[in-house]
Amino acid sequence: MFVTLTTDFGLSDAYVGAMKGVILSVNPHAQIVDLSHLVSPQNVACGAFILRCSTGFFPDGTVHVGVVDPGVGSARRGIVIQTARHFYVGPDNGLFSGALISEDVEGIYVIENRDLMQPDISNTFHGRDIFGPVGAHLANGFDVREVGRAIDDPVLLDLWGVDYAKAQTVGKIIHIDHFGNAISLIEKDRVGAWLSNMKVCVGVCQFDRVCATYADVEVGQALALWGSLNTLEISVRDGHAAHRFGLNVGDEIVIYAGE
Amino acid sequence: MFVTLTTDFGLSDAYVGAMKGVILSVNPHAQIVDLSHLVSPQNVACGAFILRCSTGFFPDGTVHVGVVDPGVGSARRGIVIQTARHFYVGPDNGLFSGALISEDVEGIYVIENRDLMQPDISNTFHGRDIFGPVGAHLANGFDVREVGRAIDDPVLLDLWGVDYAKAQTVGKIIHIDHFGNAISLIEKDRVGAWLSNMKVCVGVCQFDRVCATYADVEVGQALALWGSLNTLEISVRDGHAAHRFGLNVGDEIVIYAGE
Amino acid sequence: MFVTLTTDFGLSDAYVGAMKGVILSVNPHAQIVDLSHLVSPQNVACGAFILRCSTGFFPDGTVHVGVVDPGVGSARRGIVIQTARHFYVGPDNGLFSGALISEDVEGIYVIENRDLMQPDISNTFHGRDIFGPVGAHLANGFDVREVGRAIDDPVLLDLWGVDYAKAQTVGKIIHIDHFGNAISLIEKDRVGAWLSNMKVCVGVCQFDRVCATYADVEVGQALALWGSLNTLEISVRDGHAAHRFGLNVGDEIVIYAGE
Repeated sequence: MFVTLTTDFGLSDAYVGAMKGVILSVNPHAQIVDLSHLVSPQNVACGAFILRCSTGFFPDGTVHVGVVDPGVGSARRGIVIQTARHFYVGPDNGLFSGALISEDVEGIYVIENRDLMQPDISNTFHGRDIFGPVGAHLANGFDVREVGRAIDDPVLLDLWGVDYAKAQTVGKIIHIDHFGNAISLIEKDRVGAWLSNMKVCVGVCQFDRVCATYADVEVGQALALWGSLNTLEISVRDGHAAHRFGLNVGDEIVIYAGE
Repeated sequence: MFVTLTTDFGLSDAYVGAMKGVILSVNPHAQIVDLSHLVSPQNVACGAFILRCSTGFFPDGTVHVGVVDPGVGSARRGIVIQTARHFYVGPDNGLFSGALISEDVEGIYVIENRDLMQPDISNTFHGRDIFGPVGAHLANGFDVREVGRAIDDPVLLDLWGVDYAKAQTVGKIIHIDHFGNAISLIEKDRVGAWLSNMKVCVGVCQFDRVCATYADVEVGQALALWGSLNTLEISVRDGHAAHRFGLNVGDEIVIYAGE
Repeated sequence: MFVTLTTDFGLSDAYVGAMKGVILSVNPHAQIVDLSHLVSPQNVACGAFILRCSTGFFPDGTVHVGVVDPGVGSARRGIVIQTARHFYVGPDNGLFSGALISEDVEGIYVIENRDLMQPDISNTFHGRDIFGPVGAHLANGFDVREVGRAIDDPVLLDLWGVDYAKAQTVGKIIHIDHFGNAISLIEKDRVGAWLSNMKVCVGVCQFDRVCATYADVEVGQALALWGSLNTLEISVRDGHAAHRFGLNVGDEIVIYAGE
């Protein structure tokens, strides 16, 4: 069974390796799949976005372990979320907001069962000592109801932050990707009525249309387009939009009807 | 069966994870192997070099999926190349020039079979929507002749760019590696006649011999040597040759017979 | 069987991919697990630290291949270390000091058996040509005593470098992690007598206590704490301690009894 890993541990330390070792010791048949270990450090919203854009593509039964955990060692809870298709294991800090909002949630459990954890538990590395081994046990068929008591008040982040008002749609840049694309979660399907005649404003940029693909403009030219999530992105063909226009996460994007 | 991945997606986004999820959903038995996801963005020649230096070491039957794809969403074709030992899946932009030149090519097919692709196909992420799933199907034993029509005019890059003339050999730096070595594709076997008495010039550097190993010079000293590809490299022992001498991809390297 | 990889190859070249290809060609059943490929280039002590903090968590029988190898091509030996639980394969330069000190060593063998290596052996890439395939053979059940002659004088690094004297304990920063934590190998269990009343000095910082967890201080505040290795670390809650205080690997940390 697949166990995916999404963390802010980076790739130059022993943390990822230690967590993999624990998982494989608990469950040698676990198929570990790295999603990303370069979530911006302590940035729960960034981790939530990465998870939201990738976990849904995995087969039924996949266990997704996520560790972006600035509250490790505090009173914040560790949880398992069971949805119709997947398990999510990690801190209860909003990291799994995408699953909580988009998937059929069948149960949420606080991690309490001491037998599932490492013999020694550090105060700083629950990925290795708690979340990794819990994920490995779940991938081994362990009954999620034995993890701990059920809850119904998980922490939720408002990742989307989009206001689909009648006069205009207002969203924000949620992520700058490796290529410099500035990505929002403004969904094409929800601004559909305007599709034939809309303007997009973000920072100093204004666009009179939303393109279908990079090839709609010349190399080096900027464009707004519906990206691979079917949400609005600001890009430069073969260039880095965020650098060119000074775009940052949190910047507002406004869509309004053209005249 | 093994499915290797070589992309310019970086490691801080959801793209690699999404592609892995699709591959494993199509074919849960696929053994995914990351080659590199840090190909220089949109740099097809760089990706072609990485593929050329690593794919040949894999077992027969391996499927290599490569995605460095500045033309995604345009009219550029997607292809599968079948060689005597391997499959290559990705855009038809020269990314697989190494395989096309060095291996026994048994067939080249345009990806047309809609059944092999994701239900929704974006205009910006064919790694997830087309190339990943096609690779997963091939690793599952799908007949390559059912992928699409055969072609014989794939795009080819002149990666090698080496002129083995009588008076001198002229090549260029094709890659600066993580250690700062400046690597060419000038092959030892083809300049053999001069081996006992040759000079190497690149930028401000001149070398009176080509070494066999780093240990032939002192720590911190520069050298020309036959590298792990059996091609000419410029290095500094325990140092960074490219930074020290300002070497860049594309710089000319000239070898001529010593007097 | 698991084969872990720890190297300084970086992630932007073909080296990791080539090594994986060779391993899987020798032993298609090897389960390759990446620990880290971002060990600081040529930094054997850094690699030894990464290995020391992660390998112990893997199941019995795991083969750990480590390649941080500034002496490649020189007379330095290649070795296999067999401990009660694991195998370690790589250069004899101290990279496996953690295993040599902490584990029950059952045998150390110089890699001499030509049949275990690639047909062509480069002078610059023994990870691909020697260590990778040897690891793959061991994971396949190959008898370690057939690797080469036994030795008892492996190179050993004094990674720990801690002086647990009566009046004070003196150690050093051995690693700055991705989050900016400055990590020592001063063990909690060995300075136990002072735990209730100790001061910690490093550079310009002084701490009057050692905390149990980040949550013991406010966000942005510095602290000394017992980290996930049960050793002393200097951290800033949700911040980067090394940047804030200019801490570097090698800096001295002094612990003494409070008055």
